[in-house]
Amino acid sequence: MTDRVAAFRALHHAARPLLLPNAWDHASAAALAARGHPAIGTTSLGVAAAAGRPDGTAATAAETLTLARRLATLPVLLTVDIEAGFSDDPAAVAGYVAELAGLGVVGINLEDGRADGTLAEPECVADKVAAITAAAPGLFVNARTDTWWLGVDDPLAQTLARARAYRAAGADGIFVPGAIDLAALRLLTERIDAPVNALYQPAGPGLDELGAAGVARVSTGSLLFRAALGAALAAVDGVRDGTLAVPQGLPSYAEVQALVAADGD
Amino acid sequence: MTDRVAAFRALHHAARPLLLPNAWDHASAAALAARGHPAIGTTSLGVAAAAGRPDGTAATAAETLTLARRLATLPVLLTVDIEAGFSDDPAAVAGYVAELAGLGVVGINLEDGRADGTLAEPECVADKVAAITAAAPGLFVNARTDTWWLGVDDPLAQTLARARAYRAAGADGIFVPGAIDLAALRLLTERIDAPVNALYQPAGPGLDELGAAGVARVSTGSLLFRAALGAALAAVDGVRDGTLAVPQGLPSYAEVQALVAADGD
Repeated sequence: MTDRVAAFRALHHAARPLLLPNAWDHASAAALAARGHPAIGTTSLGVAAAAGRPDGTAATAAETLTLARRLATLPVLLTVDIEAGFSDDPAAVAGYVAELAGLGVVGINLEDGRADGTLAEPECVADKVAAITAAAPGLFVNARTDTWWLGVDDPLAQTLARARAYRAAGADGIFVPGAIDLAALRLLTERIDAPVNALYQPAGPGLDELGAAGVARVSTGSLLFRAALGAALAAVDGVRDGTLAVPQGLPSYAEVQALVAADGD
Repeated sequence: MTDRVAAFRALHHAARPLLLPNAWDHASAAALAARGHPAIGTTSLGVAAAAGRPDGTAATAAETLTLARRLATLPVLLTVDIEAGFSDDPAAVAGYVAELAGLGVVGINLEDGRADGTLAEPECVADKVAAITAAAPGLFVNARTDTWWLGVDDPLAQTLARARAYRAAGADGIFVPGAIDLAALRLLTERIDAPVNALYQPAGPGLDELGAAGVARVSTGSLLFRAALGAALAAVDGVRDGTLAVPQGLPSYAEVQALVAADGD
């Protein structure tokens, strides 16, 4: 295991949950790194929308690899959202992840939700996890189960069963996105023997409440990307209507240019 | 001249200046189109920063073409910022623009500022303009002079001289970015026999004041990109500090996905 991977793992065992912001391009990643975040993820929705492709449909394998190659040069620990691995073939998924690991990527997210709104069979996901851990030993494999996200019946039992299967296959962490109440989250963190990752919800509990429920990592998912897009639209509306309030902390032209210069390109 | 180019030209002769918002990726372009903007531009700073490359250094010819290919499928008129043409060779610049025109792009921005902070010789810029108009007849060539932007001495006289040279070579519009007071803008619009494009400045005059000074087109340059990046950073700060105010109009996951589905990919 490299020092970088070890450092990333250690961030899951700190006093406060790891706040993992998700980037979608070089600028967002470099800005988050410059803001002091020790680790960043990617958002598959953001990467897909930026490229004009749909999320969650295995349509962005090339874009994700290109982005990872770019972001791997930044002074920040990087974990990459690979949707369901962009393939049903565990060997193909493992090969893809090995390429990411070769770039210096320290972790990946692998999800069990499918484009048709159903969940993949747990055995199929576990086979991918096992293939990944064999091909990229040490890499932090965050297995995401979309039980709550896709609104299955009895999500608690299904989540625990899937978490057990993914852990047995070698997953290092379990990611359960969705609007989950704190009591259910506490049950999950008590019964899953690995760091649990929650998705930050703007109207939901804060970082410290999630931490008190045992959550080890909180990601922002597509929130930052959507906030960015919404702010661009609000700004042009403000120009059109003559009501633009210049946002505090608006980066200057020079500050944006510096995001590139900073990594020596 | 195609109907699309004619429609774009007509937007420069409306009662209110054309508000031209500048996009940097598919999502921002599709969202601006969905918001009802009849035409959009690109921002070279945004395109460059998103790709991890410096702006204004001829480093993003490939990225700009890739983006144009993507955006040309959107139901919106598209004009593309090509910096100084990504080359000093007028024939190379013209070939590049002909490729853009072949995609359905209706206009380009060509600038005379150079990476070292000086202005190119007006004859060199005029040669590029002439080569472009020969290779892509009808395309709206917006010639940008960076007299104010780069803070030259006596910008008014230099701007008028350059505008004459670029117009004589076939430019359709003159873009003068920078913080220019309304009196100077009025002089420019009175003395330049073509639509004048101003850059919107958050602390400067509004769209209607610019229109009253004779400005035909107002672009947002990198403002929307910078507002987007600033909003993403503010959002993650808010998550970290427990102070996140959910922005009004935050696009949902489904709304972002629809930006892709809308153009049939």
